[in-house]
Amino acid sequence: MSAQINWQQIFTELKCDIQAAIQPCLKTLKKPQPTLGIGAGGDAMKPVDLAAESAIVETLQRHSVSFTLVSEESGVKKFGVSPEECFVTTDPIDGTTNLIHGLPFYASSIAVSTKPEIASVYAAMVVDLHHDISYMAFEGKGAYRDGKRIETSETASLDEAVVGLDLNTYKVQTIASKLTALIEKTKHIRHFGANALELCYVADGKTDAFIDLRGKLRATDVAAGFLVVKEAGGTVTTQKNQLVNAILDPKQTVSFVASANSEIHKKIVSLVKP
Amino acid sequence: MSAQINWQQIFTELKCDIQAAIQPCLKTLKKPQPTLGIGAGGDAMKPVDLAAESAIVETLQRHSVSFTLVSEESGVKKFGVSPEECFVTTDPIDGTTNLIHGLPFYASSIAVSTKPEIASVYAAMVVDLHHDISYMAFEGKGAYRDGKRIETSETASLDEAVVGLDLNTYKVQTIASKLTALIEKTKHIRHFGANALELCYVADGKTDAFIDLRGKLRATDVAAGFLVVKEAGGTVTTQKNQLVNAILDPKQTVSFVASANSEIHKKIVSLVKP
Repeated sequence: MSAQINWQQIFTELKCDIQAAIQPCLKTLKKPQPTLGIGAGGDAMKPVDLAAESAIVETLQRHSVSFTLVSEESGVKKFGVSPEECFVTTDPIDGTTNLIHGLPFYASSIAVSTKPEIASVYAAMVVDLHHDISYMAFEGKGAYRDGKRIETSETASLDEAVVGLDLNTYKVQTIASKLTALIEKTKHIRHFGANALELCYVADGKTDAFIDLRGKLRATDVAAGFLVVKEAGGTVTTQKNQLVNAILDPKQTVSFVASANSEIHKKIVSLVKP
Repeated sequence: MSAQINWQQIFTELKCDIQAAIQPCLKTLKKPQPTLGIGAGGDAMKPVDLAAESAIVETLQRHSVSFTLVSEESGVKKFGVSPEECFVTTDPIDGTTNLIHGLPFYASSIAVSTKPEIASVYAAMVVDLHHDISYMAFEGKGAYRDGKRIETSETASLDEAVVGLDLNTYKVQTIASKLTALIEKTKHIRHFGANALELCYVADGKTDAFIDLRGKLRATDVAAGFLVVKEAGGTVTTQKNQLVNAILDPKQTVSFVASANSEIHKKIVSLVKP
């Protein structure tokens, strides 16, 4: 039974194994990166994406975990004798573009669930690979940075808040018009380019919200980060303040507002145009 | 004479001295940060800003440099017997908000010039304080990351480019409408929240452009970064493709497009609405 698996221990090993697996790729970044076809999520696959995914699969197999892999790269694959008991959803490298460009923001995102849906995720890890920091969360048991409990910020003022915002879309005109009122009232907007990690910044009190309304971010990229935010005391909803749930499938996309606390969440949601 | 000063050696010492000066501030970040009045540039001063500025002044005095300090914090101050020979323009901490929030992007920016204007800057350093990396540039002698020569990217395609964009303004509606055509064609937009450092990312080939058209970024914040970009092979102009020059004064603001190469610069400038 997947519920009896010690995910904290496996996550700790996974972090080391992914780091070891990607090191050779980090040494050859100055050379042009070959594209190894298109991943299940629709993006070009790079050697570093596949190296990280292989490390995840190998570590789980070493622990004799039966699981269904839901990966941005390889899509859906079954491993072991009872793969329907445990779903492991991953974006092996979140922020591949940053990594390839030498920008120090990229992560590995892994979410474990009983069913292939966001609401069933009960254990999650996001690893800030450049700074070698792990963010873990376990349903009902809190969120942790390198083993230390973390909590979201109490910042309720948009003037003091740091808000992450993903505007990377050809539909920027539509998205920007929805967000104009919010941006006008928010002094500090950021976008680091690694969405799973940016959700963990909200969880860790480093930022006060992260918003993606483009309708193109994959559920595989946020499944782990959502649990980290929620277990740290944050709120994740749609822009209409409804629960975000989605099937965990490489093609599934989500839009959401993730905030540090209910007060700032209310302000943000009220400023976003439908 | 300021021209005979070994700026490379002084910069190397400055980097160490600033790092040492800010360490006590980094240890007390979880506590509320007092505001020590409003700096000359118009932002609230924090203890870490003043600690870095004091370290800069002390190091220059130790080397018996006569100089006019142009600082975002203290404004214009004269030191030594012939302060009109050398202008030292600094944003002691660029990205103070990031630093205080625990976001790993903040820098110290120092530009040396014969006159108080951007075009006269002949030596510059930006220190990525979190990752302890120095970017230096000397007029006609190139740009360097930790002593190693750096060059801007050759990326000419906006689809492949990573472009930094500062949209932090209550006038977002005006700015966003100028930039819509550019954002629509650019796949990877970023904003890390430390403008001097983001200019060095262009210089170092980590990103392919950095654009700030808000009309509120201070000349003190970019004086060093502009030289680093230019000495690495990049181009810095106004949105009308004209030379950017400005008086180095804490109240002076600039708008600009900084690009890795002339080909991508041309594309960007053509997409920005006047």
